[in-house]
Amino acid sequence: MLIKFFIRPRKGVLDPQGRAVAENLRSLGFSDVKDVKVGKYIEVYIEDKTVEEAEKEAHEMAKKVLVNDLIEEYDIEIVENR
Amino acid sequence: MLIKFFIRPRKGVLDPQGRAVAENLRSLGFSDVKDVKVGKYIEVYIEDKTVEEAEKEAHEMAKKVLVNDLIEEYDIEIVENR
Repeated sequence: MLIKFFIRPRKGVLDPQGRAVAENLRSLGFSDVKDVKVGKYIEVYIEDKTVEEAEKEAHEMAKKVLVNDLIEEYDIEIVENR
Repeated sequence: MLIKFFIRPRKGVLDPQGRAVAENLRSLGFSDVKDVKVGKYIEVYIEDKTVEEAEKEAHEMAKKVLVNDLIEEYDIEIVENR
């Protein structure tokens, strides 16, 4: 079973990496780039369980380890049979 | 218009950050964690265009700037009206 975490900087939080990537893209000809956010994509493989249990565990993992709630926000996605 | 990039280390490529997160999760009681991959989640906001054009541009961005094809693989998702 697979939990995917999509973590990004909160709105208003400085994101120097995102600014650098945006400038880099524009300088290479992607002139229509308006904004870029750089965050983390984490895949956590766990033993099979119900989707409800996995979701509960995922939010606990986010809170305790993976996400800094002050400056980051996140979404999760549960993938069965992985 | 929003392009989401999900970038992760290729299978077989060393992922020390993933190992560290896995050990950290297990030590905090998430004993059913089997494996962890840590990658990048990037949001690129661009001017509106067709989904086909956006997809083509996204793969060019990945190839030229965002993804190191030797050690990383990626998926994209196009979100309209953002």
